[in-house]
Amino acid sequence: MDMTTPIGIWLANELDHVSLVMSDHLKNEHKEVTAICGELAAYRGKMLRPTVLLLSWRSVSSCETTPHEVRVAAGVVELIHLATLVHDDILDEADLRRGAQTINSLLGNEAAVMLGDYLLSSAFLLCSTVKNPELNLLLGEVTNTLCAGELVQLSRRNDVDLDLESYFQIIHDKTASLIAASCEMGAMLGKGSGCEIKALKEFGSSVGMAFQIKDDILDLLGEREIIGKPAGRDLDKGKLTLPIITMLVDNPSLKEEVQKIMGNADRDALSALLHSTGAISSAFDMVSKMVNAAICGVEEVIENESSKQLCALAKQLKSSV
Amino acid sequence: MDMTTPIGIWLANELDHVSLVMSDHLKNEHKEVTAICGELAAYRGKMLRPTVLLLSWRSVSSCETTPHEVRVAAGVVELIHLATLVHDDILDEADLRRGAQTINSLLGNEAAVMLGDYLLSSAFLLCSTVKNPELNLLLGEVTNTLCAGELVQLSRRNDVDLDLESYFQIIHDKTASLIAASCEMGAMLGKGSGCEIKALKEFGSSVGMAFQIKDDILDLLGEREIIGKPAGRDLDKGKLTLPIITMLVDNPSLKEEVQKIMGNADRDALSALLHSTGAISSAFDMVSKMVNAAICGVEEVIENESSKQLCALAKQLKSSV
Repeated sequence: MDMTTPIGIWLANELDHVSLVMSDHLKNEHKEVTAICGELAAYRGKMLRPTVLLLSWRSVSSCETTPHEVRVAAGVVELIHLATLVHDDILDEADLRRGAQTINSLLGNEAAVMLGDYLLSSAFLLCSTVKNPELNLLLGEVTNTLCAGELVQLSRRNDVDLDLESYFQIIHDKTASLIAASCEMGAMLGKGSGCEIKALKEFGSSVGMAFQIKDDILDLLGEREIIGKPAGRDLDKGKLTLPIITMLVDNPSLKEEVQKIMGNADRDALSALLHSTGAISSAFDMVSKMVNAAICGVEEVIENESSKQLCALAKQLKSSV
Repeated sequence: MDMTTPIGIWLANELDHVSLVMSDHLKNEHKEVTAICGELAAYRGKMLRPTVLLLSWRSVSSCETTPHEVRVAAGVVELIHLATLVHDDILDEADLRRGAQTINSLLGNEAAVMLGDYLLSSAFLLCSTVKNPELNLLLGEVTNTLCAGELVQLSRRNDVDLDLESYFQIIHDKTASLIAASCEMGAMLGKGSGCEIKALKEFGSSVGMAFQIKDDILDLLGEREIIGKPAGRDLDKGKLTLPIITMLVDNPSLKEEVQKIMGNADRDALSALLHSTGAISSAFDMVSKMVNAAICGVEEVIENESSKQLCALAKQLKSSV
């Protein structure tokens, strides 16, 4: 995003406010807790969820200034995201995130479990401070969906019969639901119409799905190494993702071979198979399709600088890496 | 508690309602999630937190029938408790709870991390359904306190300089705060006076401290084996508890020996030392002192059948095991 345009400057300024809301909220009377939270620095990323929340709010709101409640909601969704990252790293036995050490590798699994819980709880507490029952309800629903998605994914490990519908449901629940809820919260707090709220929520859902599919492709291709995460983790953990599933739907006779490859976590053999069957390019096509759907859905209902920024963000997912 | 008295019958009936609220709430559209929640059966205990919430409510309320909101709040605090048990078992590397297999030993640490998150999130969602902002705020505050307590405890492992004040703060935060909040929620929902709410909250806090101190003593004595939990876990995990701390405060020269004993997790040597210095009986005295304080505090402000039941519950903690 061009941070020199008026909307880019506005967004950068708002994200600074959100960061401040978060860091103020994470200050604890016990210095040990504040110190452990300090280790989260490596987990701070592009703040995608606060960004779409803020832009969704701005795309429907007639307010000149951003209410405190909106910045709080943006901090809340980012805290939930941070909590899932900390716990995901335990599940993935990951040592590195964005090139820095993960909490579990730095402080042990026990501290990582508790820190994730503390972040989850802090998100709920922060949300409760604005005393908006609808916001609390929406947050509770989306975190339940997130956790259920992770539980279903765990139960389907190494399952070469995982069908497309189940895969889409899993990535919707574990990833897209929070991005969708971020858009929905922004639109709701901006007092958008029912139609606007629905369009922005669906935008978030499609973008979230596209985002997860792309992440899954990059993990298979080993290109995640570029962004500081170890690649091939899904294969190690027995997670079947879109390219493998479409390949097996198109070529059921490959199931046995894929099972063997997954058992040995043989990345090169899998990569060759995926490329030769066209499964990788078909998965990239799915990313494009979802991004286009996201953009069309919003353009039908809203058209202003903020909605254009949302669409520009979505378009970035179509670039090759 | 005598379950044949009118109040005993009332309580048993209310706890059935609370169990129903919880099991209904944990039904998930994904059968995998409902199945994993089914494994929680072994975690269902005496429902201490819903019990004190219900009795606190009844001790101040003039309502004839129990409002749905009260049963929901009772389910919420029990869900939070279940979440902490599931995550505690990961931290403690425990295989058994009440004689049955723990979630982590049954389904692995990953499923246990996610199930704990799901329970935590479900508690917040359930709480949000009654749309009472004060209740949400209270819940967010107490879960933050709980997690912070666990984080502080983790950071003080194997620290023979842990002082009494810090120990009391840790057990207040990680255990007593939720029991105190349960009493407070009950009293608040029953529209108790400020004085009544304060007295019941302090009752819960003292009872919670006494409960944790007793649990810590039983772990050191190896008597937890009786109730189906492995004993000596605190020693294995480097957790210093009241008997050890008071012994070291009274006999600082023993620090080196205790450090050695903890390094070898030599339970018999520690037990002999604790008995010979009188540290065990002095810790039991502290349990009695706290129970008495809890009872006095309530009796000063409220006196009816419900408050008497609360005091009777507290008295049970003074029995030797």
